Amino acid sequence: MKELNSWLAIDRDSDFSIYNLPFGVFSIHGGQRQIGMAIGDKIVNLTGLADNELLPISSFFFRKDYLNDFIGLGKEVTKQVRLEVQQLLSEENSPLRNHPDLLINQVEAAMHLPVKIGDYTDFYSSKEHATNVGKMFRDPEHALLPNWKHIPVGYHGRASSIRVSGEPFHRPMGQVLPDGSDEPVFQASAQVDFELEMGYIIGRESKLGDRINTTDAEDYIFGKVLFNDWSARDIQRWEYVPLGPFLSKSFASSMSPWVVTMEALEPFRVAGPIQEPKVLPYLAYSGDRNFDITLEVGLKAAHLDEQIFCRTNFKYMYWNMVQQLAHHTINGCDVHIGDLMASGTISGSTKGTYGSMLELTWGGSQPIQMNDGTTRAFVEDMDIVTLRGYGVKKDIRVGFGSVSAQLLPCKE
Amino acid sequence: MKELNSWLAIDRDSDFSIYNLPFGVFSIHGGQRQIGMAIGDKIVNLTGLADNELLPISSFFFRKDYLNDFIGLGKEVTKQVRLEVQQLLSEENSPLRNHPDLLINQVEAAMHLPVKIGDYTDFYSSKEHATNVGKMFRDPEHALLPNWKHIPVGYHGRASSIRVSGEPFHRPMGQVLPDGSDEPVFQASAQVDFELEMGYIIGRESKLGDRINTTDAEDYIFGKVLFNDWSARDIQRWEYVPLGPFLSKSFASSMSPWVVTMEALEPFRVAGPIQEPKVLPYLAYSGDRNFDITLEVGLKAAHLDEQIFCRTNFKYMYWNMVQQLAHHTINGCDVHIGDLMASGTISGSTKGTYGSMLELTWGGSQPIQMNDGTTRAFVEDMDIVTLRGYGVKKDIRVGFGSVSAQLLPCKE
Repeated sequence: MKELNSWLAIDRDSDFSIYNLPFGVFSIHGGQRQIGMAIGDKIVNLTGLADNELLPISSFFFRKDYLNDFIGLGKEVTKQVRLEVQQLLSEENSPLRNHPDLLINQVEAAMHLPVKIGDYTDFYSSKEHATNVGKMFRDPEHALLPNWKHIPVGYHGRASSIRVSGEPFHRPMGQVLPDGSDEPVFQASAQVDFELEMGYIIGRESKLGDRINTTDAEDYIFGKVLFNDWSARDIQRWEYVPLGPFLSKSFASSMSPWVVTMEALEPFRVAGPIQEPKVLPYLAYSGDRNFDITLEVGLKAAHLDEQIFCRTNFKYMYWNMVQQLAHHTINGCDVHIGDLMASGTISGSTKGTYGSMLELTWGGSQPIQMNDGTTRAFVEDMDIVTLRGYGVKKDIRVGFGSVSAQLLPCKE
Repeated sequence: MKELNSWLAIDRDSDFSIYNLPFGVFSIHGGQRQIGMAIGDKIVNLTGLADNELLPISSFFFRKDYLNDFIGLGKEVTKQVRLEVQQLLSEENSPLRNHPDLLINQVEAAMHLPVKIGDYTDFYSSKEHATNVGKMFRDPEHALLPNWKHIPVGYHGRASSIRVSGEPFHRPMGQVLPDGSDEPVFQASAQVDFELEMGYIIGRESKLGDRINTTDAEDYIFGKVLFNDWSARDIQRWEYVPLGPFLSKSFASSMSPWVVTMEALEPFRVAGPIQEPKVLPYLAYSGDRNFDITLEVGLKAAHLDEQIFCRTNFKYMYWNMVQQLAHHTINGCDVHIGDLMASGTISGSTKGTYGSMLELTWGGSQPIQMNDGTTRAFVEDMDIVTLRGYGVKKDIRVGFGSVSAQLLPCKE
């Protein structure tokens, strides 16, 4: 990749380098939502760029509450816009230098959910996570179910309760089965958990009956986000048989505001794990389809500094995105721009790399030591959980920023 | 209820009596979609009524691709519109008699999906169905899982693949585990099934964190439809553990075009079954919350007349709609106008009342005899399956019309 430099001062450790340029939706002082691009600690005002004829498309497509219509212009256009902005930010005598007002300070902007999500699907594609959950929820001897290595197991999630980073939510109430009892009780969940996930945004429509193969699948993926699929483990354990998790997940999920394009992630491609047994032909793929993205989860208790609970990497995923999408559509299911597909919890093979409290504390039995001497088995009221992720290769750094949310006490 | 008569000739057996007046979305000759109301074999052109100042709201709200914005005006308004049309259709010197052009023949109109569905949830609320499936898929001795009588079990479904009555779809491909094997194969599903369900459309917004109680729940329900939740049983059996049905359902679902309002269903209220053990307080309810709606499923093979496979009734449901909605939101999950909540398969207690082929043929082992001497274990290519439903009380008949769809062969 060509070395790029910007005339703009960008912190060397910024997730939003000249190589990244993710898209998001922002507003200033409660004004109209519009589409922007992150660079360093600034937002490129694409509406303004277009109005000044510095971009090849009308500002109409940037004056939007969501990215969907812009994404719908197709990758040819969205890639072109990103490259034009990259050039405007890197060439020495860029016309953008005459428009300092078109670079907005991120701290002054409010970020919004970047896409109008149609359907949300959550996969379960980390072998380590599925194994850990299987050991705890089911049978330690047969933790991984027989279908797991044949199917990128997934399920439909609730789209309505997905919120952008920064929006707090309340601890959910629900039915829980006390240990040793066969009568459920109604109470606040005592086991609210985070799930470290990454999601991808569908960028191209398919029709009912169409199948997307693994070769074409990336054409249907616009970009990626960080995703925290909040879970209530005690509710989940009681409700999930036989139709899967429901209220244990649908009370809230949190998404990072900047969508990092597939183009920006190109430098971080790596091979995935060997899949044994061999997958069925429709799930076979060629090329490097995993991505080396460093991930971490921090938890900030009310009166303490943040502590890092987990450090892992997206490259560990057993099932990759093109396999997930080929599987999702093999029955003819149609996908649409703005649909969200999440990875499932991303766990590595050692304890500090597990992507949920359930695994980190082994169901609460091995709580995490906090800096003030107390412990955490699950997330507590007023805790703020933050996920971060970035790829680094030589001088190139491309990151996702963060997704952060605070757990509020149960609503009266 | 006051006896009503219309000056319009309406067949005595019509589902769309003067007592019904359901809302739907139609178009004529490929023109713009708009909202209408069914009466007998006609559609009341609400846009035209409003333009002629025969309705209290602007035609703007009827020139829409979906009912959502109209529903969003609130029950006060939508009830009023229905009552005004009822009056226009019943009073002897109605001004509508001067506008015969505002009554369109249903056969000349194309019907469309009535609502833009945000999220779709499928419940599993028939005890007989859950018991039958449990016997076949799991353990005949413990068919009903321990949580079933405590929780109105439900799961998130795929909204994108829901189509209006009349739209055909292709037999899905997928992974199936052959009997006695532990290696799945990839093939066309050999066990495509219908599921006789009813759905309800959310008519009022709730906020994240809000809980809707059983007393208020009906304020959040605009009306009901017939719903066929097509299923591929062989795919389902292999994929559904542990996160629930996914591709076995998401290839297609079919919805009836006319949404029957809760007001029109008022005469058909009946008590539901006794719930034992007693439900938790948040699921307790007062009043009659079940509805006496006669249901049937017909299957028309390519060269035969339709045969009725199932006759049952919606009143058999163990969990009712207000319990479902109270449960769905007890964790603070937000619901939105246009969300669809389906009942799950509706089965009675005897064989001819089962709402799926899976149950009617007991997993294919007792196929149904067809009129030409052949048999049906599951749905075959080119079969047309039609669900119908209606309530009758004295002279009042309120029906749903039908939802019908043809299974096409697997797409190449």
